[in-house]
Amino acid sequence: MRAGTPAEAATGDPAWLQAMLDAEAALARAQAGLGAVPESAALVITKAARADTFDPRALALASRETANPVVGLVREFRRVVAAEDEAAAEYVHRGSTSQDIFDTGAMLVAQRTLRIVRADLARCTAALADLARAHRDTPMAGRTLSLHAVPTTFGLKAAGWGLLLGDAHRRIGHLLDGGLPVSLGGAAGTLAGYLEYGRIDGATGPGREGAADDEDGYLLRLTEAFAAETGLAAPVLPWHALRTPVADLAAVLAFTAGALGRIAVDVQTLTRTEVGEVAEPAVAGRGSSSAMPHKRNPVLTTMIRAAALQLPSLAGALTQCLVTEDERSAGVWHAEWPLLRECLRLVGGAAHTAVELTEGLVVHPERMRANLDLTGSRLVSERVAARLAPRLGKEAAGQLLTRAAQSAAESGLPLARTLSAAPELAGLLTDTELAALCDPVNYLGGAGTLVDRATEA
Amino acid sequence: MRAGTPAEAATGDPAWLQAMLDAEAALARAQAGLGAVPESAALVITKAARADTFDPRALALASRETANPVVGLVREFRRVVAAEDEAAAEYVHRGSTSQDIFDTGAMLVAQRTLRIVRADLARCTAALADLARAHRDTPMAGRTLSLHAVPTTFGLKAAGWGLLLGDAHRRIGHLLDGGLPVSLGGAAGTLAGYLEYGRIDGATGPGREGAADDEDGYLLRLTEAFAAETGLAAPVLPWHALRTPVADLAAVLAFTAGALGRIAVDVQTLTRTEVGEVAEPAVAGRGSSSAMPHKRNPVLTTMIRAAALQLPSLAGALTQCLVTEDERSAGVWHAEWPLLRECLRLVGGAAHTAVELTEGLVVHPERMRANLDLTGSRLVSERVAARLAPRLGKEAAGQLLTRAAQSAAESGLPLARTLSAAPELAGLLTDTELAALCDPVNYLGGAGTLVDRATEA
Amino acid sequence: MRAGTPAEAATGDPAWLQAMLDAEAALARAQAGLGAVPESAALVITKAARADTFDPRALALASRETANPVVGLVREFRRVVAAEDEAAAEYVHRGSTSQDIFDTGAMLVAQRTLRIVRADLARCTAALADLARAHRDTPMAGRTLSLHAVPTTFGLKAAGWGLLLGDAHRRIGHLLDGGLPVSLGGAAGTLAGYLEYGRIDGATGPGREGAADDEDGYLLRLTEAFAAETGLAAPVLPWHALRTPVADLAAVLAFTAGALGRIAVDVQTLTRTEVGEVAEPAVAGRGSSSAMPHKRNPVLTTMIRAAALQLPSLAGALTQCLVTEDERSAGVWHAEWPLLRECLRLVGGAAHTAVELTEGLVVHPERMRANLDLTGSRLVSERVAARLAPRLGKEAAGQLLTRAAQSAAESGLPLARTLSAAPELAGLLTDTELAALCDPVNYLGGAGTLVDRATEA
Amino acid sequence: MRAGTPAEAATGDPAWLQAMLDAEAALARAQAGLGAVPESAALVITKAARADTFDPRALALASRETANPVVGLVREFRRVVAAEDEAAAEYVHRGSTSQDIFDTGAMLVAQRTLRIVRADLARCTAALADLARAHRDTPMAGRTLSLHAVPTTFGLKAAGWGLLLGDAHRRIGHLLDGGLPVSLGGAAGTLAGYLEYGRIDGATGPGREGAADDEDGYLLRLTEAFAAETGLAAPVLPWHALRTPVADLAAVLAFTAGALGRIAVDVQTLTRTEVGEVAEPAVAGRGSSSAMPHKRNPVLTTMIRAAALQLPSLAGALTQCLVTEDERSAGVWHAEWPLLRECLRLVGGAAHTAVELTEGLVVHPERMRANLDLTGSRLVSERVAARLAPRLGKEAAGQLLTRAAQSAAESGLPLARTLSAAPELAGLLTDTELAALCDPVNYLGGAGTLVDRATEA
Repeated sequence: MRAGTPAEAATGDPAWLQAMLDAEAALARAQAGLGAVPESAALVITKAARADTFDPRALALASRETANPVVGLVREFRRVVAAEDEAAAEYVHRGSTSQDIFDTGAMLVAQRTLRIVRADLARCTAALADLARAHRDTPMAGRTLSLHAVPTTFGLKAAGWGLLLGDAHRRIGHLLDGGLPVSLGGAAGTLAGYLEYGRIDGATGPGREGAADDEDGYLLRLTEAFAAETGLAAPVLPWHALRTPVADLAAVLAFTAGALGRIAVDVQTLTRTEVGEVAEPAVAGRGSSSAMPHKRNPVLTTMIRAAALQLPSLAGALTQCLVTEDERSAGVWHAEWPLLRECLRLVGGAAHTAVELTEGLVVHPERMRANLDLTGSRLVSERVAARLAPRLGKEAAGQLLTRAAQSAAESGLPLARTLSAAPELAGLLTDTELAALCDPVNYLGGAGTLVDRATEA
Repeated sequence: MRAGTPAEAATGDPAWLQAMLDAEAALARAQAGLGAVPESAALVITKAARADTFDPRALALASRETANPVVGLVREFRRVVAAEDEAAAEYVHRGSTSQDIFDTGAMLVAQRTLRIVRADLARCTAALADLARAHRDTPMAGRTLSLHAVPTTFGLKAAGWGLLLGDAHRRIGHLLDGGLPVSLGGAAGTLAGYLEYGRIDGATGPGREGAADDEDGYLLRLTEAFAAETGLAAPVLPWHALRTPVADLAAVLAFTAGALGRIAVDVQTLTRTEVGEVAEPAVAGRGSSSAMPHKRNPVLTTMIRAAALQLPSLAGALTQCLVTEDERSAGVWHAEWPLLRECLRLVGGAAHTAVELTEGLVVHPERMRANLDLTGSRLVSERVAARLAPRLGKEAAGQLLTRAAQSAAESGLPLARTLSAAPELAGLLTDTELAALCDPVNYLGGAGTLVDRATEA
Repeated sequence: MRAGTPAEAATGDPAWLQAMLDAEAALARAQAGLGAVPESAALVITKAARADTFDPRALALASRETANPVVGLVREFRRVVAAEDEAAAEYVHRGSTSQDIFDTGAMLVAQRTLRIVRADLARCTAALADLARAHRDTPMAGRTLSLHAVPTTFGLKAAGWGLLLGDAHRRIGHLLDGGLPVSLGGAAGTLAGYLEYGRIDGATGPGREGAADDEDGYLLRLTEAFAAETGLAAPVLPWHALRTPVADLAAVLAFTAGALGRIAVDVQTLTRTEVGEVAEPAVAGRGSSSAMPHKRNPVLTTMIRAAALQLPSLAGALTQCLVTEDERSAGVWHAEWPLLRECLRLVGGAAHTAVELTEGLVVHPERMRANLDLTGSRLVSERVAARLAPRLGKEAAGQLLTRAAQSAAESGLPLARTLSAAPELAGLLTDTELAALCDPVNYLGGAGTLVDRATEA
Repeated sequence: MRAGTPAEAATGDPAWLQAMLDAEAALARAQAGLGAVPESAALVITKAARADTFDPRALALASRETANPVVGLVREFRRVVAAEDEAAAEYVHRGSTSQDIFDTGAMLVAQRTLRIVRADLARCTAALADLARAHRDTPMAGRTLSLHAVPTTFGLKAAGWGLLLGDAHRRIGHLLDGGLPVSLGGAAGTLAGYLEYGRIDGATGPGREGAADDEDGYLLRLTEAFAAETGLAAPVLPWHALRTPVADLAAVLAFTAGALGRIAVDVQTLTRTEVGEVAEPAVAGRGSSSAMPHKRNPVLTTMIRAAALQLPSLAGALTQCLVTEDERSAGVWHAEWPLLRECLRLVGGAAHTAVELTEGLVVHPERMRANLDLTGSRLVSERVAARLAPRLGKEAAGQLLTRAAQSAAESGLPLARTLSAAPELAGLLTDTELAALCDPVNYLGGAGTLVDRATEA
C-alpha cells in the first residue's frame, strides 16, 4: 500500500540508519561548537555519517544481542571513522547513550516524513477547495443512518473533507514547529556523561566562561546546539521516560489517518454501483480485477481505508507506551519502534494516495440529481412539516407528513401531489406553492454560505 | 475506581441529561436573541430544563427504539414545557436534530469534567514541584532496563513526573480554550431547518436586516449565539460527520491517563518491598488486605494504573470513529457515546486519585542511599571509563572497567578497590582520587539544574 | 444500546454482587462438604447471600480504600451472617482472599450472560437458516470492492451470516463447557490459608483419611467441591496471575461482536435508499427521526454496529492484561473489571437486538433483481470471457470483454448485444446462445449447493 | 527483535510470494486430479511456482494499481509458465480470483510460522517443567500489589509460566489441526468461475459421473482436493467475507504473546538489582550497554515484552476486520495483511527468544531466601491470625496481628518475638511453637502438590 511512495523511502531501514548517523554527527558538531570536540574530528565524523557505508541487515542481527541497534552501529561507525582518522574515533558518541541517538534519529525520521505528508495534505486541501467551490450549488441527497435525509450539496461535502484535512495539516504543522525534540540525557537522563566529557575535554569546569555555575550553562548550551544542528526542538528535560513527543506523534498520525479514512469511505459509498455519484480517476490498467473484466475497482480509497483501519490500534499501542517505568524501560521503549515506523509509513502512503484521489475525483451531478429524485420531495418533509406546523400544530403537521410521505413512497407520486389531496390543507396552499415548497433544490439551507466560509478559512 | 469522585458525578446519567437539556435551553435562548423565538418561551424552556424532572431509565429504554436518547427526551421535554406554557412547547428543539443536542451536550459534559481534571492536575503539578525542589539533591539509583545504571536524584524524577502532568494540563487547557464546539447543523448539516424556522418565525428573510444575504448572516449569528449561550466554541462547519473534537478529546484524555499511569508504575516500582524508596500516604484502614494483616497495599497507584491501562484502547476506539460515512453514520456516531463517557470517567477518577498520591507521597532518602550502595561505585563505571579513556584508550578503558565491575560484583568490594589493583592504573590516580571518582554522589551530572529549570517552567 | 436487555440485568451491579455472594456461599458449602465448616454455618451463610441486603453504592465507595470491592463486602457480609448466627460468621470467607471471590464471581457473571447470548444466537442462526433456505435461489448482485461483481444469491449471503453466528455459538459453547473455572488460590496462590483452616477445623492433617499426603488430597477435593457448587470448572492451578480464562472470554466476545457486526453492516449496505434490497422489521414508532417524518432508520443494525465497533478495542485491552507481574498485579487485574463487564454487556445487547433483526428482516427480491439489471449482463463478463478464451485465447477474450462491457455501460445496451456485434464472434455463437450465456441468473455457480451444505451443518 | 529468527524467514516477502505460488500450483493440481486441467499443465505450473523467479519489489509496486499483489503476480506467473509451455499458461489461476490465492497463501504462511512457534513453545514448556520440578520446594516471597504477601515457591511460579505456554501450545495445535482453511470461492464466493471452467474443460456437466447433481459434487470435490494439496482444511463455505480463520489467528497469537509477555515481566521483576532472584542466561557480549560497562541488560525479556505490548492492539485491529461489508470489502480485507504478518513475526520472534530464556534462566535460591527474610515472619501473619482466631476471635486476632506486624516492621524484630510479648497470648503458645508457626518455610500450602499436578499435566 505504500510501496514506491516517498514516505516509504523516508521510513525505510536506510532512512533510519541515516537519521541515527545524522544524530551522531550533529552531536559531534554541537560538542565541537562548545569546544568539547576538535572541529576536525567533528568534520571527519560528519563526513563518515553515510548510511550506505553500513549493512542494515548485519546491524539488525547484532541488535538482538543488546536489544537496540545503536550499540552495534556505534561500534561500526567508530571503525569507519577510525579508518579515516584514528583520533577522531574517540569523539564518536562521546558521553552519549543509545537512547539519545535512537530517539533523536526517530524524531528526524518523523520530521522528514511529516514534511512529505504535510505537503501532500496541502495539495489535497487545495483540490478539495476547488471541488467545493465548483460544486457549491450541486444538490445531492444528504444521507443519515444510511437513508436519504434532507438535501445537501456536494460542495458542502467536499468542504467538510477539506476542513478535516486542514485540521490534520494544522496539527502536523504544530508538531513540526517545536513538537519534535532532540533526545539528550545520557545514561540515565542526568546528562552526567556529557558533562564529564565536557570537563575532560576542557570545554567546561570551574573557572570557564567566568562562573561557578558554568557547568549548568554548558549543558543547556549543549542541548540547544544539538537542537540547532538537527533542526529539532530543545526539550525542557531529557525525555527518555517522559514520552510526550511520541504520544503527540501517535495522536496526530491517528487523526490524519482518520481524516483521510473518512473521505475514503464517503467516496466509496458514493461510488457504489447503485449510487454512482463519484468515481475514482480512471487510469489505464488501474483497478482491474483478476477475474472480472468489466470492473474498475476503487483502489485508491481501498488503500487509504486499509491504512485508516490500522492507525487507531497502532497509535493506541504507541500511546500505551507512555506508561513506562524507571529511567528507561525494559521493553516499553522498544515496543515503540516498529509501531512508530508503521504509523508513519501508513499515513505517508495514504496521504500520497489521497493526492491522486482528490485531484482526479470524477463527480457526476446528474447521478446526484437522479438519486435525489428517488426520494424526491419526501426529502423535504421536514421542511413542509415546519411550514404547516404553525397552521395545524406541530403534532398534527408531523402526522400528516408521515402519512403523506408513506403514501408517496407507496404510490410513487410526488409528495406535493399526495399532500394536495389532504383535506387539512384545503385552501391553505396553491398547487404551485406546494410544488415549490416540495422541491428539494429549494431546501439547501446555508450550504452555499458554509462552503464559502470553509473555503475561505 | 471512580466511585464518589467529582468526575463520576460530572459524567453520570443525570449529568448527561442535564447537559442535553442545557443545550436545548441555550438553543432556545440563542434563537430568542435573534428574534426567532419569543423571549418568554425561551424563559419557560430554560426554567423547565432540569434533569431531575426526568427519569433517565425510562429515557434509556425509549432510546432503543430510535437509537438515540434525544427523540424521547424531546418528547418528554415538550410535555413538561407545555404543562407550563402550551405555546412555548412549540419552540422546543425548533429546527433542530438529535445530533445537535446530543453532541452539544457531550461537549458540555466534557468541558465540565475537564475543568475538574485540570484543577486536579494543577494540584498534582504543584505537589510534584514541591517534591522536586525538596529532593533536588537527594541521590538515588537511576535504573534502566530494570537494573541500576548511573545515579540520579529523586528531585529529577519528581520533576519529570511534574513535567508530564504539566504537558497534560496544557493540552487540556487548549481543548477548554476553543477546542470544544457546539453542534449546530440540523437534519443533514445544512442548517436548513433552523433557517426555515427563522423565516417562519420572522427572524430572517428577504428585506430583513437590510440585505439579500441576510439569511447567511442569520445562520452565522445563530451559531455564535448558541456558542455564547453554552460557553462552547463556534465551529467553522457543522461537524456531524467531521469528528475532530471527539478525536482531540480522545488524544488528550489518553495522554493524561498515560502521564498519570507513568507516575503510578514508577511509584509502584519504588514501593516494592525490596526497594522501599517511597510509600503511598498512610491512611487508617486504606490498603488493607482481606487476608494479610501486615500489608498496606498501594491502592492509589493501583487504581491510577488500572485506568491508564484502559485508556489507550478506549481512546483508540474513539479515534477510529473518525472514519464515518454519510452526513451521519448508522453506528459509528453511536459507538462514541459509551467510549467518551468511560474515558472522561476514568481520567477524572485517576486525576482525583493522583492529587492524594502526589500530595501525600512519603519519600525515604535513606532507602535510596542504601539501595545506591548495593551497586555502589559500579554505578559510576561509565564515568571512570570516561576519565581513563584519554589515558588508556576507549577500548582498553572499557574493558578494564568491565573486568573491575565484574570483580567488584563478585567480591562485594568497592569498585575503587578492585580498580586500584589494576596494573594499568599504577601511578595514574591516588587512592583518594579514585575514591572520589567512584563516589556515586559525585556523579549527578546536571540533575540539579534540570530540576531548577523544570520547576521554573 | 443495552438498556432493558437481559444481558444488562445479568451484568449490572446487583448481578455482580450476587455472584460474589454466590461464590462465598459455594465456598462455605464446599468446605462444609469436606468437614471444614459446620453444615449449619454453611446453611446460614448460603441463606444470607442475597444481594438485595447490601448497598452497592456504599460498597463501591468503600472499595476505593482497598482497590477492590471484596474487602468491604466481606465485612458487611460477616455482619449480616453474625446477626443471624454469631458462630457462623467466623466461617465466612474462611481461608480466602479477595481475588478468589471476585474472580469466581466474574466467571459466574460471564457464565450467566453467555448462556443468554448463546440462546439468542441459537434463535438468530435458526432465523438465518430459514432465510437462507427461503432465498436459496434468489439472485442478487454479488458486490466486491463496492461494485457489482458477479451474481450471487441472497440465500448464500444469509447462509454466510448464519455460519458466522454458528461459529460464535460454538465458541461460546466451548467456554461454557469447561472454560470458566473457579478461582481458588488464597493469598498468593498456594492455597495455604485454606489448608491452614482445614487443619484448624480438623478437616485434614496427618492421620486424616488414612494417609500422610491427605493434605494434598484435601486441597484437590476442595477445588473440585467448589467447582461443583458453582457449576464452574476446576482449574489445574490457581490462576490469579495466569489469566487464560479472561483472555479466552475476550477472544470469544470479540469474535461474537464481529460476527454480529458483519451482519449489521451488510444489512445496512443493502438497506441504503438506492439499494433497498432489505429492510429492518417495521415496528410502529421505531426508527423515527426527531426531524424527518419520512424516515425509518435502521436502528437495530445501528445499535449492533455500534457495539461491534467497540469490542475489538475493549477485548484487546483485556487481552493485554495477560501481561501481569507477581502473584497478583497492582493494577493489571483491576483494569480487567470494567472491560469485562462492558464486553459482556455490549455483546449481550447486540445478540439480543440481532434476534429481532434476523427474525424480522424484510427481503425484497424484486429490488435485488432490479439492481442486478443495472449492471445486467456485464455481471457475467467473467463467464463469457471464460467461454470465449478457448476459442480466442485468454488475452484476446479478456480484451474483447473489456471493450464490450465498456460499450454496454456507455450505450445502456445489454452485453449480449454489444458482443454480438463483435467481428471476432461471427459464427461462433447464435444470438440465443449469447443471450443465455449473458443472463446473470444462469451464472450462480454452486450457490444453491453451498446453501444446502451450510444449513445442514 | 525478530531479525534472523526462523519466523522472520517464514513471514518475509519471499515466503509470502512462495505461499501464493504454492496456492496456484495446488489449485492446478487439484483441478488436474478432477480432470479439469491436463496433468502435464499442472506439472509445469508446479515446477514454475518458485518465488526466486520473481521480483517482490516490482510486484509490490504493481500491486498499488490493483490494491492487491495477485493480479500482477498472476500476469508474471503466466509469462513464466508460457515460456516453458504455452498451453499450460492457459491453466494458470483457472476460474480463480485474487482473494482465493492470497488468502490460501496467507493460511500457508500462518501454518508454517505456527509450526515453528509450536515447536519453540514445546521447548519452553519442557524447560519450565524442569525448572518447576527442580525448584519444587524453593521458597520465595509471594508478591501481591507489589509487596510481599505470603511465601510461595519458585517451582510454583515456573509451573504457572509453563501452564500458560501449554495453553498457548494447545490453542496453536487446534488451529493447525483444522482451523486454517483454503480459500476457494471465485469472484464473489459462488465458485461460479471454477464451475464454468470445469464444464468448459469437460470435468463436470450433465451426464458426468452419472448424475444431474454432479456439478455440486464437482465443487465439493474441488474444495477437498485443494485442501488436500495444500495441507490446509476444507471450509464449509467460501470465507471471503466471513473472516473466522483470521479472527481465530488473531486470538491465538495475542494469547501466545500475552503468555510470553507475562513470563518476561515476571522475570524482569525478579531480575531488578534489589531483588536479584533470577538472571537471564549470561552470554558473552550480550546485554552490554553503550554507556555502562557494569551492566548486563535483560535483553531477552526486553524483546519479548516489547512484542507482547504490541500484540493486543495489532490483534484487536485484525479482529475488527470481521466487520466487513459485501462479498469482498474495499479496504477491510486489505487492512488484514500487514497486521497478520506483523503478528506472526512478533510472536515468532518472541517464542524463539523465549526458548533461550527458559532453557538458560539462572535462579538464585539464596537471594530468594534473603529477600524472604526481609519481611520475615510477617509474611505468615495471615497464618498466625488464622491460628489465633479460634482462641481470640477473628476480629481480635486480626488486630493483634496488625499491631504485632507493625511493631516488627518498625523494630526489625521477628514477628514471633513481638507476638510473644503480647499479653493476649500469654500461656497459649510456647516460644518454640510460636517460632515454628512464624517460619515462612512452614507455610507453603499446597505449592508442592500444585507443581506436581501441573508438571504431570
